[in-house]
Amino acid sequence: MIDLRSDTLTRPTTDMRRAMAEAEVGDDVWGEDPTVRALEEETAALLGREAALYVPSGHMANQLGLYVSTRSGEEVWAHEHHHLIGDEQGAAAVLSRVLPRLYSGDPFPPQELLESWISGLGDVHRADPALLWLENTFTGQVVPLAEQRRVTDFAHAHGLRAHLDGARLWNAAAHLGVSPEEAARGFDTVSVCFSKGLGAPVGSALAGDADTIRRARRGRKLLGAGMRQAGIIAAGALHALRHHRERVVEDHQRAARLAERVDGLPGISAAARTNMVLLSTPEGEAARYAEAFAEQGVRGLGGGSRIRLVLSLEVTDSDVEEAAEAIARAVAEL
Amino acid sequence: MIDLRSDTLTRPTTDMRRAMAEAEVGDDVWGEDPTVRALEEETAALLGREAALYVPSGHMANQLGLYVSTRSGEEVWAHEHHHLIGDEQGAAAVLSRVLPRLYSGDPFPPQELLESWISGLGDVHRADPALLWLENTFTGQVVPLAEQRRVTDFAHAHGLRAHLDGARLWNAAAHLGVSPEEAARGFDTVSVCFSKGLGAPVGSALAGDADTIRRARRGRKLLGAGMRQAGIIAAGALHALRHHRERVVEDHQRAARLAERVDGLPGISAAARTNMVLLSTPEGEAARYAEAFAEQGVRGLGGGSRIRLVLSLEVTDSDVEEAAEAIARAVAEL
Amino acid sequence: MIDLRSDTLTRPTTDMRRAMAEAEVGDDVWGEDPTVRALEEETAALLGREAALYVPSGHMANQLGLYVSTRSGEEVWAHEHHHLIGDEQGAAAVLSRVLPRLYSGDPFPPQELLESWISGLGDVHRADPALLWLENTFTGQVVPLAEQRRVTDFAHAHGLRAHLDGARLWNAAAHLGVSPEEAARGFDTVSVCFSKGLGAPVGSALAGDADTIRRARRGRKLLGAGMRQAGIIAAGALHALRHHRERVVEDHQRAARLAERVDGLPGISAAARTNMVLLSTPEGEAARYAEAFAEQGVRGLGGGSRIRLVLSLEVTDSDVEEAAEAIARAVAEL
Amino acid sequence: MIDLRSDTLTRPTTDMRRAMAEAEVGDDVWGEDPTVRALEEETAALLGREAALYVPSGHMANQLGLYVSTRSGEEVWAHEHHHLIGDEQGAAAVLSRVLPRLYSGDPFPPQELLESWISGLGDVHRADPALLWLENTFTGQVVPLAEQRRVTDFAHAHGLRAHLDGARLWNAAAHLGVSPEEAARGFDTVSVCFSKGLGAPVGSALAGDADTIRRARRGRKLLGAGMRQAGIIAAGALHALRHHRERVVEDHQRAARLAERVDGLPGISAAARTNMVLLSTPEGEAARYAEAFAEQGVRGLGGGSRIRLVLSLEVTDSDVEEAAEAIARAVAEL
Repeated sequence: MIDLRSDTLTRPTTDMRRAMAEAEVGDDVWGEDPTVRALEEETAALLGREAALYVPSGHMANQLGLYVSTRSGEEVWAHEHHHLIGDEQGAAAVLSRVLPRLYSGDPFPPQELLESWISGLGDVHRADPALLWLENTFTGQVVPLAEQRRVTDFAHAHGLRAHLDGARLWNAAAHLGVSPEEAARGFDTVSVCFSKGLGAPVGSALAGDADTIRRARRGRKLLGAGMRQAGIIAAGALHALRHHRERVVEDHQRAARLAERVDGLPGISAAARTNMVLLSTPEGEAARYAEAFAEQGVRGLGGGSRIRLVLSLEVTDSDVEEAAEAIARAVAEL
Repeated sequence: MIDLRSDTLTRPTTDMRRAMAEAEVGDDVWGEDPTVRALEEETAALLGREAALYVPSGHMANQLGLYVSTRSGEEVWAHEHHHLIGDEQGAAAVLSRVLPRLYSGDPFPPQELLESWISGLGDVHRADPALLWLENTFTGQVVPLAEQRRVTDFAHAHGLRAHLDGARLWNAAAHLGVSPEEAARGFDTVSVCFSKGLGAPVGSALAGDADTIRRARRGRKLLGAGMRQAGIIAAGALHALRHHRERVVEDHQRAARLAERVDGLPGISAAARTNMVLLSTPEGEAARYAEAFAEQGVRGLGGGSRIRLVLSLEVTDSDVEEAAEAIARAVAEL
Repeated sequence: MIDLRSDTLTRPTTDMRRAMAEAEVGDDVWGEDPTVRALEEETAALLGREAALYVPSGHMANQLGLYVSTRSGEEVWAHEHHHLIGDEQGAAAVLSRVLPRLYSGDPFPPQELLESWISGLGDVHRADPALLWLENTFTGQVVPLAEQRRVTDFAHAHGLRAHLDGARLWNAAAHLGVSPEEAARGFDTVSVCFSKGLGAPVGSALAGDADTIRRARRGRKLLGAGMRQAGIIAAGALHALRHHRERVVEDHQRAARLAERVDGLPGISAAARTNMVLLSTPEGEAARYAEAFAEQGVRGLGGGSRIRLVLSLEVTDSDVEEAAEAIARAVAEL
Repeated sequence: MIDLRSDTLTRPTTDMRRAMAEAEVGDDVWGEDPTVRALEEETAALLGREAALYVPSGHMANQLGLYVSTRSGEEVWAHEHHHLIGDEQGAAAVLSRVLPRLYSGDPFPPQELLESWISGLGDVHRADPALLWLENTFTGQVVPLAEQRRVTDFAHAHGLRAHLDGARLWNAAAHLGVSPEEAARGFDTVSVCFSKGLGAPVGSALAGDADTIRRARRGRKLLGAGMRQAGIIAAGALHALRHHRERVVEDHQRAARLAERVDGLPGISAAARTNMVLLSTPEGEAARYAEAFAEQGVRGLGGGSRIRLVLSLEVTDSDVEEAAEAIARAVAEL
């Protein structure tokens, strides 16, 4: 079975397992774990920030980014399909008690919309906005840096802060040919993930200025995510950060190859977006198609008229060829 | 100045003031105010419910309706323009910590959308839905009872509860020619307002079954809205409920008359919806038009390309004629 | 029946009813009610503050005082028997999500305790403190101004704000022979009540600097306590503020008289504290004693070994004599 | 340096590191990690429960126990020194919005207190109680099973649920000579820790009936603590559970030995409580004593008049002898 449901499925490599087995550790709740500290420092440096905080998931990195930049009852401005909105169990309401104000369509808000949202302020019914949210990549799609810059500038000009959900920032930076720091510029906080494209077993980080991260650290404790000898898993993340960051371009190439192979099969059009292949099927048929793929040995996530196939560390060139053939067989039999 | 910004502006009539001055009162926090009790009982009876609770505002009646039917982290399904969402200071997030799942367009959700929302459940990322929300009238527009019934049936079939924001239920019922009970059928809780079309100075009510309202009463105390000798203002609400409920059709007639008079003026198209007149202006011009109206003696609320004019208790037939003329003058001079 | 359960029971006088019937009103949600404005301005002036906000209850004035001076997860330092803690339905946790850190005994925290609380900060397990809370009077007992000053100074020296629950501040000021402003000095926010000793039907106020009160006003809207033509009840509060503030000393005198009359009756010791008489009964007997009093025509609140009798506007000198006799009869028959 | 500050400091053994390096893993967010599953099943079985949930910390196991058994605005009954109250960053208020009602003194509430708390219900000011909380051991002190049974019976008889913070349940069971299941009997939920006495690097578990744990699993996702290939650290916890559970009695013996050695040194009295030694120093001197110990090579946690020394996996018999001598030297020089 070639499992292309997500890049979160990747299991640690042998070298990564060795790094974890040999990790030097201490009690991280008391700030005494050298491996966690090294991971946080290297992540911060890579993103050009003063500090970073290691957390168990991208979801938590995002929620802490929200928590430190908002007060209860304020607005966060986001896309209706951002992970924060519909994929985090209502956490934005429970943990930060903020009100989402949402746009749809493009993965960044149009200028006129931002302006109309700002112009409505002051009304006694309206909550105050606190935070503007972007995701890059957004379901594999790269947000152009010029758009990022436009919206973060707008946010700061009107007293909002800006957060970047960079769960797949490594892919965006690689695609754009810029450093992670460059790809994350203009945001007050940025989350990155060690466990998707990079292949570490556990963890993400939130980066920002020292005071913000100090508050996020307290927030992490509040959530109960202070871990003791966390250096074990941090060692896996550190290994991934040092050794797997540049290889994500291979995933992009394999995604392009796979898209090329399956695009135009009966009922299917396919497009590669960084490390993802997005397949369009006839309306409402995606689940049935995905099931047919699985019967031929390829797993993806399908719903409505879309199937998502994600390339990552464990998927090889020959897996791509095999997957393309399996999909072709499946479609032929539908 | 003819003030048509809202039906919330109405000041109490002489008879209403007398009723308040003579009201029999007690300490309502201890359940000892006979006038509040009478108001709650008459409201419940009118809506065919076991119990009702008097609260300071429609906003609070709604928020308590939300609070008693949800748990933190659950979803409420609503229209993006429902009062609950954008006009209550983020209260849904702060007080009930729920996640809105929103539709747009028609003031009731299409069947396919409801079905797609239900089909996504069970996913570990998705919050559970708890409550389906409707508003009738919705910016003056009456939601057909068949649509209400369809969506409340759907909600109950899938384990959700249903709430009706009936701030202008009296207008909907009058327009439909049915009783308030009939207009509110199928909902677990319903809020009604004494202070918009009915003209009382202060207050709304939440109605439902006895246990739900008992919990809402505790929620009202939690919010700090237990009022001592509340019978004073409840007397105004009771007077309004007894004497002003049927007169809202006059507001509808005046709205129709006003719409007819101004529709087709240069740059303006107008439509009456129960007690409101909605004017369309050229894009982005509504604020400027509204200002011009005000200079001629008519106040409305304008933004984008829409101006809202609301008819209510203090607006007479001759006010309508005068307002139409003032608007014509304003438009002529623009 | 002479009802001494609480000073919240007082019904409006004839003059107060007339003031309410004739009140000039507007839509207070839009800041257009002249009577509410007058009440807020006179209250602010009396307390030497920039601004005040009219709210439906003392509970809400307190909760808004808490809301504007804390962030989620911070500590509020209070007495275990402060109204905020055990008498507001858990609202401090629900609305402001703060952690109480409590002292017991005297109605103000001893210096060593404050110092030990401060010294524990910085620990990763500890929440940050944000607000120090006092109540004056506290179950009728006056907190000395020197103690108030000591603790507010301590709070400010360590970056905490300070709030005074002044539901019975009028009684404290009258007892101390100082102005309300003097009695409330040193606090960032102060709540006062129009409906206990002053006898208005509905309402309290929160006073503070202009920015704090602006945020409290948004908080009031968030809670759903924006009221439309609130001038009706504000007129009662304004009448109370102007005409009933100085008469609270009569309640104190009557409390002293009543305590004197019943102290030393079999099983009873009594002490007057401003407008309250606190009776001690044999352990666990208070409820039975209170019931016996009620059979003789005097109602109080009893639990454990204590009965509370409260003097207020409607209780006359002859009521006091009658109550004393009724209690004597009740005790004789126990 | 012999570090006796806490049993959380323990670093993984060689065997444990090997188990982690070789762990079979999958994506635990999707329920596909076999090692996490095995850990959860063995933990549940050991506690006689239907299900268990692996989480990053004891703090989170506790907070989820609270979250699943309460609604916003309800009371949790606990000891003022329970970890939940003062050592979890205000999380009970932020995550579950509950109001603590606290006792002090013995590590279980006296019967009369429970009865007085129940008798006050129904009052409109009082929140409803939802959950009774115990901790066993409590700062090393074992709560007798008869007391546990009394209070859990009381809780259930009055409609409350009961939670056991069993961060050191292994120590309590070993001390009492009963199984963990027996030591945790009568509670709806119980948390246990793999990282204190057992020496695993990361993690705790919450156990209970299947439906409760299903809801806790959603709560864990909401908090952002869904971890991907968590089997790495779960392997360490599983190893600890299988191999280190019975050895905690050695820590108890060493604690007894250490207490014996230092009790009666000038200014010091010492008592062993399971794996802890609690030293009493002259009032206010504990921090100074602890510093002196550290200068001689022994670290403990000191504040007020108490120093805590904790025995755990890495502390040997000869460490105990050395520590005793170091403390004697330190005291001699003070």
